[in-house]
Amino acid sequence: MNERLLLQLEIDQLNAAYAAALDERRFDDWPRFFLEDGRYTVQARENFDRKLPLALIALESQGMMKDRVYGITQTIYHGPYYTRHVLSPRAQLLGEEGGRIRAQAHYAVFRTRPGDASEVYNVGRYIDEIVRTPDGLKFASRSCVYDSEMVLNSLIYPI
Amino acid sequence: MNERLLLQLEIDQLNAAYAAALDERRFDDWPRFFLEDGRYTVQARENFDRKLPLALIALESQGMMKDRVYGITQTIYHGPYYTRHVLSPRAQLLGEEGGRIRAQAHYAVFRTRPGDASEVYNVGRYIDEIVRTPDGLKFASRSCVYDSEMVLNSLIYPI
Amino acid sequence: MNERLLLQLEIDQLNAAYAAALDERRFDDWPRFFLEDGRYTVQARENFDRKLPLALIALESQGMMKDRVYGITQTIYHGPYYTRHVLSPRAQLLGEEGGRIRAQAHYAVFRTRPGDASEVYNVGRYIDEIVRTPDGLKFASRSCVYDSEMVLNSLIYPI
Repeated sequence: MNERLLLQLEIDQLNAAYAAALDERRFDDWPRFFLEDGRYTVQARENFDRKLPLALIALESQGMMKDRVYGITQTIYHGPYYTRHVLSPRAQLLGEEGGRIRAQAHYAVFRTRPGDASEVYNVGRYIDEIVRTPDGLKFASRSCVYDSEMVLNSLIYPI
Repeated sequence: MNERLLLQLEIDQLNAAYAAALDERRFDDWPRFFLEDGRYTVQARENFDRKLPLALIALESQGMMKDRVYGITQTIYHGPYYTRHVLSPRAQLLGEEGGRIRAQAHYAVFRTRPGDASEVYNVGRYIDEIVRTPDGLKFASRSCVYDSEMVLNSLIYPI
Repeated sequence: MNERLLLQLEIDQLNAAYAAALDERRFDDWPRFFLEDGRYTVQARENFDRKLPLALIALESQGMMKDRVYGITQTIYHGPYYTRHVLSPRAQLLGEEGGRIRAQAHYAVFRTRPGDASEVYNVGRYIDEIVRTPDGLKFASRSCVYDSEMVLNSLIYPI
């Protein structure tokens, strides 16, 4: 089997496991998908396309992610909602350099608030740098570049 | 090739064929995706997470499914609509026990009513027990666990 | 590895690359996904199911597609929007005849207008005839059969 395809399938698995962890609210598992100095950003496409640095969320280590999870689950007052990630197959491999695999995938996240119908919440593109570790593939960096310029007033949980 | 990956791909194919049958309204084909004593349930996540048994629909054999199809196509008065299933790759393998493969996949179903725009209809997760038979993979059990607590007044066709 | 699966994976890659080109607004790349005499149509499911020929858009060569791209990017006055394609895995192989592979895949396209939330835009099914060329897989024909009968007043970009 073509090695490139095999790698794509592995990345699809990584993406599926990541999505399942978030949608099942296993938030403590979330930082473990990243390297210890991994980077997680959520940025409007508008800014990304113009190479502007402004991001809605920018976390630069697992520690910051754990902090964020603590905030989400323990301290932030917010209306609860469920998320549901649906990803487009298949991760596209964009290149590889110095052991870092660059890949991207389209995502749609649906939100369901208690007593309400499900709705489109956030759609966009994951732009990733992925590294192979003894514990499997990990994100050195995951940028969630979302299409809607409208700043969401309730982007609580990770995308 | 890794056997686990191969199995995942087969399950993806099963899921794609299942979705196509429903969206193309080949409802008579639907029960054939299950074992003769296969189980099909549609349940709110709220109940599933709390391990409450209440389900919107619970069918416990191919016979009951055929009955349901007869109802849908011949007797139930309802406003017609199209469905469109979009599934997230890839089926996650959760384990295997006694020849039963446990897997899950995220789904989004869109609904289109005549003269109307398409809308988000039902999003959630398939939780499956799959068995290999001489006729290919079949569902011993498929639970559709949907995110919206709101009981839909028109869940006519299978999810 | 099963050759059929390998082909499916290749088609998934083709679909992912096609979707990325459109969503990243690389419209000039779009005609290159087709054969020189390739066919692209966008048709309501209503007409498709009844075998009626009426289509919203019907382009019968790469030249017509280039023309369309010129129109979209240079001359048509329209409100801009982003698109985001999310496809369901996996391409279903429907058959092969005389070197033409017939396949289909479900799609959901989300639209985001400036300053607005993302919304469901167009959902349906790609019905494809695919040919292997020295430059990789190409569409001999791609029909986008969409579920909503409502004619969209702003179907500007390709689906």
